[in-house]
Amino acid sequence: MPAEIRTAEILAVGSELLTPHRLDTNSLYLTGRLNELGVQVLAKAAVRDRRPMLREWVRLALSRADLVVTTGGLGPTDDDVTREAVADALGLPLRDDDGILESIRARFRSRGLEMPAINLRQARVIEGATVLANPRGTAPGQWIETGDRVIVLLPGPPRELQPMFEEQVAPRLARRTPPAPLRRRVIKITGRSESHVDEVAQPIYATLGDADVTVETSILASPGLIEIHLEGRGVDPRQIDDLLAAGVERLTAALAPYVFSDDGRALEMVVGDALRAHGWRIAVAESCTAGLVLGRLTDVPGSSAWVVGGVVAYANEVKVQQLGVPAALLQEHGAVSEPVAQAMASGVRERLGADVGLAITGIAGPDGGSPEKPIGTVVIALSGPREIVKTLRFAGDRQMVRTQSVAAALDMVRRAAVSRG
Amino acid sequence: MPAEIRTAEILAVGSELLTPHRLDTNSLYLTGRLNELGVQVLAKAAVRDRRPMLREWVRLALSRADLVVTTGGLGPTDDDVTREAVADALGLPLRDDDGILESIRARFRSRGLEMPAINLRQARVIEGATVLANPRGTAPGQWIETGDRVIVLLPGPPRELQPMFEEQVAPRLARRTPPAPLRRRVIKITGRSESHVDEVAQPIYATLGDADVTVETSILASPGLIEIHLEGRGVDPRQIDDLLAAGVERLTAALAPYVFSDDGRALEMVVGDALRAHGWRIAVAESCTAGLVLGRLTDVPGSSAWVVGGVVAYANEVKVQQLGVPAALLQEHGAVSEPVAQAMASGVRERLGADVGLAITGIAGPDGGSPEKPIGTVVIALSGPREIVKTLRFAGDRQMVRTQSVAAALDMVRRAAVSRG
Repeated sequence: MPAEIRTAEILAVGSELLTPHRLDTNSLYLTGRLNELGVQVLAKAAVRDRRPMLREWVRLALSRADLVVTTGGLGPTDDDVTREAVADALGLPLRDDDGILESIRARFRSRGLEMPAINLRQARVIEGATVLANPRGTAPGQWIETGDRVIVLLPGPPRELQPMFEEQVAPRLARRTPPAPLRRRVIKITGRSESHVDEVAQPIYATLGDADVTVETSILASPGLIEIHLEGRGVDPRQIDDLLAAGVERLTAALAPYVFSDDGRALEMVVGDALRAHGWRIAVAESCTAGLVLGRLTDVPGSSAWVVGGVVAYANEVKVQQLGVPAALLQEHGAVSEPVAQAMASGVRERLGADVGLAITGIAGPDGGSPEKPIGTVVIALSGPREIVKTLRFAGDRQMVRTQSVAAALDMVRRAAVSRG
Repeated sequence: MPAEIRTAEILAVGSELLTPHRLDTNSLYLTGRLNELGVQVLAKAAVRDRRPMLREWVRLALSRADLVVTTGGLGPTDDDVTREAVADALGLPLRDDDGILESIRARFRSRGLEMPAINLRQARVIEGATVLANPRGTAPGQWIETGDRVIVLLPGPPRELQPMFEEQVAPRLARRTPPAPLRRRVIKITGRSESHVDEVAQPIYATLGDADVTVETSILASPGLIEIHLEGRGVDPRQIDDLLAAGVERLTAALAPYVFSDDGRALEMVVGDALRAHGWRIAVAESCTAGLVLGRLTDVPGSSAWVVGGVVAYANEVKVQQLGVPAALLQEHGAVSEPVAQAMASGVRERLGADVGLAITGIAGPDGGSPEKPIGTVVIALSGPREIVKTLRFAGDRQMVRTQSVAAALDMVRRAAVSRG
């Protein structure tokens, strides 16, 4: 029985992938399918279509991974050199395949065309390769076993690559992959920095996994959101799931109340579900975020059931006239202050007839800071089920301050809704 | 004088880049900027954050390219191993940098926090490296010359990476790159489909370029925005610039009035500049976009000079009570109708005391469509300098409909402001 395939590298071929305008999206599809088959992707690369350089990349990839998947470079033109470069790397000759030639000819014929001479190239097959038929295009794929390793050549267009993988590559791989599925859980956190989360999580990471299941963790940070990814690998899917669930529980307990989701839901979905569960409808008064909180709340289909609307009070006179914030309060405390935020929250709740009022006022920069209220100072207030107000300080530029403010405001609603659950 | 830098490889570090969910978008930005500096990108790769494996990748990349740029893996946690792996590959030790340590401490202090011990790692510098300061985050970059070659370590977050490249890497590279410049112009268009734009532009592409300058064109489409990129290559920068300017002029003439920018400005900036030029202040009433128009208008620093604020009228009662839309109008025509949009636009303008009132109401889906008003039906109205109302029909899912609606609404303001110029 041939050796198991546990690791892979993906090699996307084509100079157009090395321009500022094109991303290799095939690798996302392939990574997802390989993971489902229990294969971990060690690395992926996009390489220019130069034969000697590509030969070297193929040789190195085969020295590192059990499986190498190339995409692209199987067309009929001069810059389609994948077949040749892989043959070079393996030290194997290419032969003309009459079956392929006939099917390419037939393809042209069916459209009333003569096959151009350059398409002859596409009938070239590496010695010993299994041909992977391509009913959706002219370029067939190839499956080559070399020692314990496998290299698969796939065409570049996703509409050709994906069915070829499903129908011809996945079944072959399934016979060579360990019965060791890879399962994944994601914990989403807001209101803490990456390093704070990591400090709490590190000791728990060490307790994950056992003799049968290995768990890999990674942490991902973006403004207002930290994600912990747990990847479990083993033999029994039920066992992996149980172990990951225990890990999620331990991490969630240690990081509560900052964890808002462990089932893939985004923060605005968690907030929407909590509001709907209570039968509460929300209205929002926004100054520095100027509509972005409402924009995110209404990203969720069906959100008209829990979102009434709101007022974007960018100018102070809007705070007074549309929200009923007393001018004296603005005068005395300034627009970015707890009393004003509270008046905005109760004002928007009452005037729009909502159950929950949420307000945000702050200094996003780059101008408007002062020694007492530097850029990044943001006040968030909630009115209705409870009266809450908080002053926060965010780092970063205008966009980061705004993004973090939106997350903090949504999270205030979540906490108020959940704690009343 | 050190050898010229003509080729590069980009190495994105992080296991999260080897999942089915994340693409490395930094490489597009870096490729664009490197090309402008005359550097060709030979290959790019995403690699897991395992120190021995990463060391090997760095070593190989340095054997193939004049310049290696790594992104990511400079954070404070255990899986941030880029510093260590590059030091291994170069056979150089790491030292602690007091200056970096102090600036990270100060960053935490400014937010009233103690620096966690794990952030100490971020102060580690490879011997002989030039430290690239990072005012937008805790992870500094590093520039290391090794023989004729250069390796640059950049942080992963684009908002930290991009300014670091502009301010600290590009000027250093410019001293080492060949004087064969690549110049680029971008024309931004809204309100037309990609195929419409392409049909008009194709015959003009053929007229670009001459014996001394080659021009490459590409077209990029996203919801509500089409960009035409012109890349000119030659010997004399002035000659390239003149040729590109003539091309921009010809394309703009053929595509007017859909072209809103040829100088890099985003639509919200063009709108802001036009409003400011007139001394007009704007208020917005949003239903289906629920704050996203105001969110984009206020992305621009200083926008409080031309944005008053607005009302998000998601529920019908908000349209009546906060905007003064007659209930009878809603009853007779429905919320997504031209008379209601006009009433919202004039209502928000009058009630908020603005010069320009803008209103949007529509059906973003996935629910709420009907045979007469299918999903994607959006009505936009403007009140003030002129009274305009338009019914549009957008394709795509909820998010695409909303994004296209925002662009169309902003563009209605642009056209009204420009035509009164």
